[in-house]
Amino acid sequence: MPAVTVPVAVRWSDMDAYGHVNNTDFLRYTEQARVEALAVVKAGADTGTLVVRHEIEYRVPLEYTAAGVLVDIWVTRLGGAGFDLGYEVATTHTGERVVHAVSASTMVMYSFSRGAPRRIDEAERAVLGSMAGPPVVFRRGGR
Amino acid sequence: MPAVTVPVAVRWSDMDAYGHVNNTDFLRYTEQARVEALAVVKAGADTGTLVVRHEIEYRVPLEYTAAGVLVDIWVTRLGGAGFDLGYEVATTHTGERVVHAVSASTMVMYSFSRGAPRRIDEAERAVLGSMAGPPVVFRRGGR
Amino acid sequence: MPAVTVPVAVRWSDMDAYGHVNNTDFLRYTEQARVEALAVVKAGADTGTLVVRHEIEYRVPLEYTAAGVLVDIWVTRLGGAGFDLGYEVATTHTGERVVHAVSASTMVMYSFSRGAPRRIDEAERAVLGSMAGPPVVFRRGGR
Amino acid sequence: MPAVTVPVAVRWSDMDAYGHVNNTDFLRYTEQARVEALAVVKAGADTGTLVVRHEIEYRVPLEYTAAGVLVDIWVTRLGGAGFDLGYEVATTHTGERVVHAVSASTMVMYSFSRGAPRRIDEAERAVLGSMAGPPVVFRRGGR
Repeated sequence: MPAVTVPVAVRWSDMDAYGHVNNTDFLRYTEQARVEALAVVKAGADTGTLVVRHEIEYRVPLEYTAAGVLVDIWVTRLGGAGFDLGYEVATTHTGERVVHAVSASTMVMYSFSRGAPRRIDEAERAVLGSMAGPPVVFRRGGR
Repeated sequence: MPAVTVPVAVRWSDMDAYGHVNNTDFLRYTEQARVEALAVVKAGADTGTLVVRHEIEYRVPLEYTAAGVLVDIWVTRLGGAGFDLGYEVATTHTGERVVHAVSASTMVMYSFSRGAPRRIDEAERAVLGSMAGPPVVFRRGGR
Repeated sequence: MPAVTVPVAVRWSDMDAYGHVNNTDFLRYTEQARVEALAVVKAGADTGTLVVRHEIEYRVPLEYTAAGVLVDIWVTRLGGAGFDLGYEVATTHTGERVVHAVSASTMVMYSFSRGAPRRIDEAERAVLGSMAGPPVVFRRGGR
Repeated sequence: MPAVTVPVAVRWSDMDAYGHVNNTDFLRYTEQARVEALAVVKAGADTGTLVVRHEIEYRVPLEYTAAGVLVDIWVTRLGGAGFDLGYEVATTHTGERVVHAVSASTMVMYSFSRGAPRRIDEAERAVLGSMAGPPVVFRRGGR
């Protein structure tokens, strides 16, 4: 299984007035997993990754738990300057694995000094390649 | 044009270490526009809307502006218990309209007392129907 | 009355699981009022303001309102490199003015290039001086 | 030492455009430590704690670290319906302990069904009493 699993903390204040984690905060969890899993990719002083798109499907509402969530993250496409990621946001503290959301992102490597996308270098390609996995399966048809 | 335009405030703290509004906060802007545009839909004591999915495409990075953003919001599908929304997040304070992101959501009406989806009622259907508009056009192919 | 009154938007998602605006978000409101009221102070490319301390007293819980809050902000001390601010966070949409919180901050002008505090310049001093007002009156004894 | 030490995760997105963790997020860290340390206190279905006041002094700017922060939390006053807390927010991942902020809060036990403060019960008093510690020492004079 090529996915990297990143434990991400949930904050009590992530819950909104419905008593569930606000849907927006799930993207914070996938962002945090991405930052931790791709630390080597983002290590360059002049380098960052830009988010081009996100898609996320919510399956089971999440209440605050001190146990946090587990975010599986993997690479579903590896291009010249960009790549796609898949994510699964789950909990296991109830004794069974519950998938609360699945998500997909398109990212582009970016050079701040040049103000333009840049090619994925070899070290980055090795890391991203090692995380290669299948496309994200969404239940609902989108567009 | 059936879209409702909702001005949404941007907070200085929405910017992240890249000096741009964090991509996650765009979903806060569309959420806020949804809450304001659909206030009548959410008015029932026992009623809420659940988010089933979001898709968002980022086009132009956004820096903090005291002028805030304008969120156009419209209805792209109206079903029995659920509906789809389209959004465009733009600024105009530079003298021209800049579209920073486009997005789409699938929502479901939910009864908290019954813990289950419920049908869209006639008053809600009238409001949502008056906001009917075309599908969101994303540039990038998704799945 | 020397205070500047800054309308600040409340987001629906600022509410936590208690159904009230989370106490932390009040500091976001005072931050946003500070950014808007002191825009001229923060205008320099190399300049920022550092927060040294905050004190905040909560008086009346705040529920989300599309009307937002009004933040009164004024200067309670003007030193060589630092200054103190007072704030009152209120709503008026119910027909009467309700003060939800009062707060005080100590700020220091900071030069990023030198990595050190810097003196308040004359233009800044004029702006800050024009906002001079009385000390914040807290009800509860602190330390 | 009666303080309870709670590790709290820092999110990359907590950083603002200055490249430091936004000052407001420190109160999120102390809130999260409070929720975890006082879980037993907040366990009742009808019970919550209301924040009456916060004071926080910032000492050393904090950049994002995957190691997170350590929040020491202790009780500085134990009354009939209310209590005061002290906090120290530190990092140790650099090999030495750096205190980034110290803070103090006044809390009140609250009954939601009665809409009023309520007495701290014996079980709560035992927990809070076991965390008793010295007053928070702020460097700067406040009011």
